[in-house]
Amino acid sequence: MAELRQNIITRDWVIIAKERARRPDEFVSGIRPRPPVDAYQPDCPFCPGNEQQTRHELFRVSGEHGWKVRVVTNQNAALSSEGERIRTINGVYRCMTAVGFHEVIIEHTRHDRTTALLTVAEVADILTAYKQRYSEIKKDPRIEAIIIFKNHGEGAGTSLLHPHSQLAATPIVPTQIRRRLEEAIRYFDEAGECVFCRTLSEELHIRERIVFESEHFVAFIPYAALSPFHLWIFPRRHASSFDDLLDAELMDLAVNMRTVLAKVYHGLNDPDYNYSIRSIPTRDQRTDYFHWYLTIIPRVTRTAGFEIGSGMFINTSLPEESAKFLRNVKVPS
Amino acid sequence: MAELRQNIITRDWVIIAKERARRPDEFVSGIRPRPPVDAYQPDCPFCPGNEQQTRHELFRVSGEHGWKVRVVTNQNAALSSEGERIRTINGVYRCMTAVGFHEVIIEHTRHDRTTALLTVAEVADILTAYKQRYSEIKKDPRIEAIIIFKNHGEGAGTSLLHPHSQLAATPIVPTQIRRRLEEAIRYFDEAGECVFCRTLSEELHIRERIVFESEHFVAFIPYAALSPFHLWIFPRRHASSFDDLLDAELMDLAVNMRTVLAKVYHGLNDPDYNYSIRSIPTRDQRTDYFHWYLTIIPRVTRTAGFEIGSGMFINTSLPEESAKFLRNVKVPS
Repeated sequence: MAELRQNIITRDWVIIAKERARRPDEFVSGIRPRPPVDAYQPDCPFCPGNEQQTRHELFRVSGEHGWKVRVVTNQNAALSSEGERIRTINGVYRCMTAVGFHEVIIEHTRHDRTTALLTVAEVADILTAYKQRYSEIKKDPRIEAIIIFKNHGEGAGTSLLHPHSQLAATPIVPTQIRRRLEEAIRYFDEAGECVFCRTLSEELHIRERIVFESEHFVAFIPYAALSPFHLWIFPRRHASSFDDLLDAELMDLAVNMRTVLAKVYHGLNDPDYNYSIRSIPTRDQRTDYFHWYLTIIPRVTRTAGFEIGSGMFINTSLPEESAKFLRNVKVPS
Repeated sequence: MAELRQNIITRDWVIIAKERARRPDEFVSGIRPRPPVDAYQPDCPFCPGNEQQTRHELFRVSGEHGWKVRVVTNQNAALSSEGERIRTINGVYRCMTAVGFHEVIIEHTRHDRTTALLTVAEVADILTAYKQRYSEIKKDPRIEAIIIFKNHGEGAGTSLLHPHSQLAATPIVPTQIRRRLEEAIRYFDEAGECVFCRTLSEELHIRERIVFESEHFVAFIPYAALSPFHLWIFPRRHASSFDDLLDAELMDLAVNMRTVLAKVYHGLNDPDYNYSIRSIPTRDQRTDYFHWYLTIIPRVTRTAGFEIGSGMFINTSLPEESAKFLRNVKVPS
C-alpha cells in the first residue's frame, strides 16, 4: 500500500506512491535535451557589452577582465523601491502599496553557462552577490521578507536563457513563510529544540536520504519530499538568517550547491529546476527556532488538480531511492 | 505602482502587477491550438467497448444507448480502499497508511468532447456522478476529506485525452484545507458571519469582478486572484458541504459551470485548466463558517521560483479587466 508522509517542518502531507513509483532513471527519459546555445548572444541584455540595457546596477563582483557577477534592478520589477508602505483595509478587501525590491543577479558573463558547470569560485561569486544584497536590503525598514530564487529552464518559469537568479524583497511576510514560522515555534515550545536541527541530526543518523555532505552543509531528500528529487541543503550550524553565513561557510555552500546541481544535471539530464533560499523574516534575527536553508525542486513532474485542490502532493518516487541514485552520480570535481 | 492584495479567505498575498499587466486578449496568443482528436479511439480505455479495461465500475449514469457517465477506480490509484488507518509517529517522522479512494469520472462516451462544449444536461450528469460518489464515500469512517478535481490538457497535468475528472478521498485533512477552515473560523468568531457569504455579497454589490450569474450560483474573479482568469463559482445559499447541493441547484450549477468554461474556451482559445471543488472535511457538516465552492484555474502562466519560495504569486493581469473580458465573451447557449 502507498504511504502518507507528513513533513514535520511544513506540516504538508504527501502520498508516496510506492507501487506506482518509477525508478529514478525513468524520470530521465522524459527530459528533452536542450538546444545548443552560443556563448555570446549579441541581443541579450545580460551579455557583456549590453550593460546599458539593464537598469541601475546595484552590485558587481569584479574580475581581471570586467565584471563576473552583476546585480541589477529587474526590468519588469513587480515591486518598486520608491514610496511608502500604505495599507488599506476596506471590509474584506485588503491591499498595500507594492514597495520592495525586485532584482536580477546576472550569474556569469557567458550566455551558455549553467550553475552545474561553473567552478566553485564562480558559484561563490554568485553567493557573495546574494549575501551582499540580502544584508543591504535588510536595513530597509519597509521590508519584511527577502526571497532569493532561481528559475532554470522554461518549465521552471524563465524564458531568458542567460544564467540569472532573482531577489524579491516584500513589505509583508508572505503567509506561507509566516505559517512555517508558526510551526517552528510550536515545535520549539513543545520539544525545546529547533525542528530543523533535529531533522538534520536524524537524517545524519539514518543516512538513507543523504545526497552529499560537505564541511558546513548537508544535502538530502526530505522524508516527505513533495516531488521526485526535491532536495534540501541545510547548514549544519544553527542560524536563522541567510546572511549569518560566515565566509568559510559561503565557500563550502558553493562546493555543496555546485556538487548537488551537477548531480542533478548529469544524473537527470539537465532538467528544469527552481531553487530558493528560505530565510527568516528580516525583523526576526538569530532565533532558536528557525533555521535557514536552500530548497531545490527539479521539475520532472507537473502539478495538477489534486495538488491545487488539496495542497497535498503525490510523489511517484521513493525519497530513499532518489537519494541513493543522486548520491551515486559521479560528477567532475 | 503595483499593488499587493490579500485574499481574506486564504490569507494569501498576491502582487497585482498593474504596469506589467497584459490585456486579457494578450494571454490568448500564447495558447497553441490543440491537434484534432477523433471521436473514438480504439485503444482508449475510457472509450465505449473497452469497459473491461477499467477497474471496478462504481457508478454509472445510464442513457438510452448505454452509459453516459461512468465512475471507476483509478488504474493507478494513489490511495487504497482496503485496509485500516494506521498512524505511525517515530520522532520527526510521521506516516500513515494511504487508505482512501481514488476514482476516475469518465465524463462522456466521446473521446473528443470537452466540458465547454457539452450540453447542460450532460454537465448535470457529471455533477450527479460527483454528488453520488461524494455522499457514498462520506459514510466511510476512515475518510476525512474528499477532493474532486479535473485536469484539462497536458499543462494541467493530464496525458489522457478522453474527458475525465477525478475524486480523491483522504484519511487525513490536508493541511491547506485545515488552514482555510481555521481562517474561516477566525473570521466567523470576529465578524459573526461567513467570510464567503460576506465576500459574495460584496462582489454582487460592487459588480466589478462578476463573470456570470445564474439562479443559484455566481461566478467571479477573486479580488486577490493568484493568476490570470482564476475563477470562483460560489453557491448563493450558504452550505458547507458539496453534497448539500439540492437538485435544482445541481441543474443550475451545470448551467453556470458550462457557461463559464465555454467563456474560457471561446475567449481564451481553449487553454489548459484545472478545477476543483472545495468542500468542508467530511466529519464537519453544516457549519456557519465554511462555504463550499468551485475554483477554476486556467493555466495561462507558469508557477516559478518566487511562488515556490514565498507562496506569494505575481499576477500580470487585473482581475477587474479579466472579469470584464470573460463577461463579454458570447457563448452559444
